Amino acid sequence: MRKMKYYINKTVQESLEQTTINITEELQKEGFGIVTQFDVNKALKEKLNIDFRPYRIMGACNPAFALKSIQAEDKIGTILPCNVMLQEVSGGTEIAIINPISMVSGIDNDDMKAIAEQINVKMNRVINNI
Amino acid sequence: MRKMKYYINKTVQESLEQTTINITEELQKEGFGIVTQFDVNKALKEKLNIDFRPYRIMGACNPAFALKSIQAEDKIGTILPCNVMLQEVSGGTEIAIINPISMVSGIDNDDMKAIAEQINVKMNRVINNI
Repeated sequence: MRKMKYYINKTVQESLEQTTINITEELQKEGFGIVTQFDVNKALKEKLNIDFRPYRIMGACNPAFALKSIQAEDKIGTILPCNVMLQEVSGGTEIAIINPISMVSGIDNDDMKAIAEQINVKMNRVINNI
Repeated sequence: MRKMKYYINKTVQESLEQTTINITEELQKEGFGIVTQFDVNKALKEKLNIDFRPYRIMGACNPAFALKSIQAEDKIGTILPCNVMLQEVSGGTEIAIINPISMVSGIDNDDMKAIAEQINVKMNRVINNI
């Protein structure tokens, strides 16, 4: 079986905080707002007293696409919003955005697949422009 | 190609708000805390002025499993935390939890698959006990 990469990624020479600002701006240009934020390293410190590198997961949502997606596939909320992950790496920050096409590859729904294709174009622009 | 259902679901005869309380308790028994919440219907009202049925997406995280997952597969944050979706349906609330095995089916990583199997057992207990 062909394996599709489940994310698109890029490493930038900026801090995680600056990258958060920059990626939020690029996402906004494509109509996506940040609707959730989960700082994994903070949770690991609080819950397990473990020191972990900065690792942030943000949920990005384009309301019009969210509506179309739920109308096409009412349980799609289990894979919404689109996750944008940032982690500190040597010399900068790695960004990884979920690959929307990979996410819906196991769903038998052509309308949903068509929406994912459109979101994929937007997310690739975000990665290219950052 | 065999299609695996990407969620596990159940409908209960409770309001969405009561179901949120109940599912949060069941998730806690399995070591999962709610780390994100996204009320899709509120976002659709605010951003598009559309009236949509109550539809909530919560992110559930078990810190020990999150750590193991990221150590096994550093871009797994693009599909974390585990989404728990609630939507108002006739006579009650439908719960759908992401199927962790389906989520990692496209990832070539046996350690990650083994972790997903363990999370799947926990999430099935949550659905059975709710």
